[in-house]
Amino acid sequence: MENSVGESSTTAAVTSIYHGLPLLTTRLVSSNNTNNNNNNTQNKMSLVINGDSHTQAHLGQVITHYLASLQPHKQRFLGYPTNEEFNYEALAPLLHLHLNNAGDPFHGSSFTLNSTSFEVSVLDWFAHLWDIQKSEYWGYVTTGGTEGNLHGLLLGREQFPDGILYASQDSHYSVFKIARMYRMQCIKVASLISGEIDCRDLKALLLANKHKPAIINLNIGTTMKGAVDDIDLVIKTLHETGFSRDRFYIHCDGALFGIMLPFLKEAASKISFKKAIGSITISGHKFLGCPIPCGVVITRLEHMKALSRDVVEVIASRDATVTGSRSGHAPIFLWYSLQKKGIIGIEKEVERCIMNARYLRDQLGSAGIGAMLNELSCTVVFERPLDDEFVSRWSLACNGNIAHVVVMQHVTLSMLDSFVSEFLQNRVIWFRDGLRKPLCIANDVGAIHCTCPLHISIKLLDI
Amino acid sequence: MENSVGESSTTAAVTSIYHGLPLLTTRLVSSNNTNNNNNNTQNKMSLVINGDSHTQAHLGQVITHYLASLQPHKQRFLGYPTNEEFNYEALAPLLHLHLNNAGDPFHGSSFTLNSTSFEVSVLDWFAHLWDIQKSEYWGYVTTGGTEGNLHGLLLGREQFPDGILYASQDSHYSVFKIARMYRMQCIKVASLISGEIDCRDLKALLLANKHKPAIINLNIGTTMKGAVDDIDLVIKTLHETGFSRDRFYIHCDGALFGIMLPFLKEAASKISFKKAIGSITISGHKFLGCPIPCGVVITRLEHMKALSRDVVEVIASRDATVTGSRSGHAPIFLWYSLQKKGIIGIEKEVERCIMNARYLRDQLGSAGIGAMLNELSCTVVFERPLDDEFVSRWSLACNGNIAHVVVMQHVTLSMLDSFVSEFLQNRVIWFRDGLRKPLCIANDVGAIHCTCPLHISIKLLDI
Repeated sequence: MENSVGESSTTAAVTSIYHGLPLLTTRLVSSNNTNNNNNNTQNKMSLVINGDSHTQAHLGQVITHYLASLQPHKQRFLGYPTNEEFNYEALAPLLHLHLNNAGDPFHGSSFTLNSTSFEVSVLDWFAHLWDIQKSEYWGYVTTGGTEGNLHGLLLGREQFPDGILYASQDSHYSVFKIARMYRMQCIKVASLISGEIDCRDLKALLLANKHKPAIINLNIGTTMKGAVDDIDLVIKTLHETGFSRDRFYIHCDGALFGIMLPFLKEAASKISFKKAIGSITISGHKFLGCPIPCGVVITRLEHMKALSRDVVEVIASRDATVTGSRSGHAPIFLWYSLQKKGIIGIEKEVERCIMNARYLRDQLGSAGIGAMLNELSCTVVFERPLDDEFVSRWSLACNGNIAHVVVMQHVTLSMLDSFVSEFLQNRVIWFRDGLRKPLCIANDVGAIHCTCPLHISIKLLDI
Repeated sequence: MENSVGESSTTAAVTSIYHGLPLLTTRLVSSNNTNNNNNNTQNKMSLVINGDSHTQAHLGQVITHYLASLQPHKQRFLGYPTNEEFNYEALAPLLHLHLNNAGDPFHGSSFTLNSTSFEVSVLDWFAHLWDIQKSEYWGYVTTGGTEGNLHGLLLGREQFPDGILYASQDSHYSVFKIARMYRMQCIKVASLISGEIDCRDLKALLLANKHKPAIINLNIGTTMKGAVDDIDLVIKTLHETGFSRDRFYIHCDGALFGIMLPFLKEAASKISFKKAIGSITISGHKFLGCPIPCGVVITRLEHMKALSRDVVEVIASRDATVTGSRSGHAPIFLWYSLQKKGIIGIEKEVERCIMNARYLRDQLGSAGIGAMLNELSCTVVFERPLDDEFVSRWSLACNGNIAHVVVMQHVTLSMLDSFVSEFLQNRVIWFRDGLRKPLCIANDVGAIHCTCPLHISIKLLDI
């Protein structure tokens, strides 16, 4: 590296705010004292930033310890819809650059270290997947599902400033947060036992609020039960209640299934821009797999134009996205994943996830544990384990009396076997004193899927 | 990898939506046809995702071409405040994992593949930098400056639902976008010629709107001119106009200088939570350097509590952030950068950037090109080059009649020498026919810094 002007000058403009501060001295000492402790403690303690400069070798050690500490979690990572099976080794050289796709990916930008050409390729792929012509769509690679919802719902609100947002109670938590952020009136719609939006309730609510346009959030599928809202039925309901196409906007939150469903022949409700929807978003780190959270949002060009026409001079682009600086790496990861898998690879992975989910449901069933799996879903819902340690050990996601496993690409049959076997062993322990019993999940997934003592006895009576 | 149940079953639930689609066949052909073209075309063409599965070797080649195509830009990357000088090789193994810090970093989460321990270390460091006790602050690692502004301004709005947002006209474009998103009344305040907020104008506006609380966005410093708003003077203005502390909220957008300024002895207006400010945000990919955009927001714990108390069960954490799923990698990059540099390293880098910026200003001045550099800034503002190709070649950021160079760590003296020399050569060409003249930048940076024909002649008359 070249010398700077005046770097070693005695008139340097710089001084330290840190030298001699007692707090940092204390931290430094406690960090040094940990050298003889076990790995875990050392690892934890040495994360403190004490102001010293550390060598790459030392820091590399910390990272190695950290990675080792994550391995057990990775081997039993069942509760979240993130694909942990990928290999982006070929992309490691990209770590040497900050890439930034600030602005509109279709507009170009004066931030020349960008990857918008990769981004547009990825967007084209999704536009094609969801049946919208290149000349008619707009979109971008987001930081994740929440930003996709932020963008889609903003498009809806800008089209209908006094519109009411309808979202089923099974919608992702971000939807209700966004309603608050955007100061939108939001009405929660009931869900069916499957998790799907209840169109009878939606109908009643629409009729009661006919005077205001409707902005509807649909789930493809829901966070907890993996249920897919029926787009056709929702549109039919809108028409039946007198909402013409110019008085509603539908945003599809397709976090996980938005990319899986198009590959399933049996999918009842196809996701398609040939239907009267305004936007679709998916998370890139879910099915496709990506080290960092990211996502894709696709909308009709006409909606985006209503949102932003102005060029921001400093980036020589349009400020059409929610976040300004956007990752240049994320689109390359997505591009790489799509190119590596190919259509056949994606099909196979979708099939494997769904088949393995059915396997888990059946194994739980055979073991006498009630479980629900929506058709064409890879999210298996069952009674919440009573022990938090067990929940954490398998990284399960819980809600009330239920827990779920999302069977993603990294979830193998032997992981599922181990999980069921361990679950059974633990249940024996939890329930052996007779004081605790399996939780009732009839209200969550229906009595038919519940194996709590009450519903077991009812079933026995029926026989 | 283990076989799945029924993967090769003839009753597989999966079919392809792609097989035989003409559009994809066309794409495939055009992709294949590019093999004999030059690298650029090949690179561009092969980005199309045609549905085939590609080998790692093939994809690696595309990435290599892409990286090579970026090198010339990197060698002349002058216009943006991103540090392109870093080495995160030691972190390459992290690419094998999706890490996710969904939720509140201080609350824990059932998403076990997280890096919240790194995140909290980074936050602690910034809290200390900005004088706020561990027990009194809250914060998180964001996706970048815009999310930091989204969060800080939301805190302000939730505290004062009918508050008016005041932001100088030199504020980042995201601030005005956010006002629209949040449905906040927003008043643009005039700026001084330096780019700093004009407190006389602010005073008049506050007096005219005394009935409503004030939410103020301050810039540390501004996007285009690197000007630092005077926090003390703004607070004084608020007091003078009768705004007691319980009727205003100040958010500091410290994108680039929020981390640099504390290391400068001469900094007139220290950024500190000892003053009546509510939140500070910086971008992580700017001074510290990070492959992906990221940032830090720090606020007072009391403000965050007002925003979110609810635990979201599915992640077993609080939904206290704007985005839901958050990068687990970004905090590790920031942690690594802070640990590697140490305090002394940061001081040296701050000094070098500022000294080199002064060098550029002086070189431009000696060459007869008017340029402005705010004190304690590394952003040099000058006349906009007349040729877009030159602007793009040096990745300059422009606005109206001005352009700027932001002297970051990767900007060497020889880069600056080449830039000035090439600028001079080009000016000779642009102006040689006498039809075009250097743009007047007196309105942007003051007549004293302008070398347009008019202001040159006035200066000559004065002599």
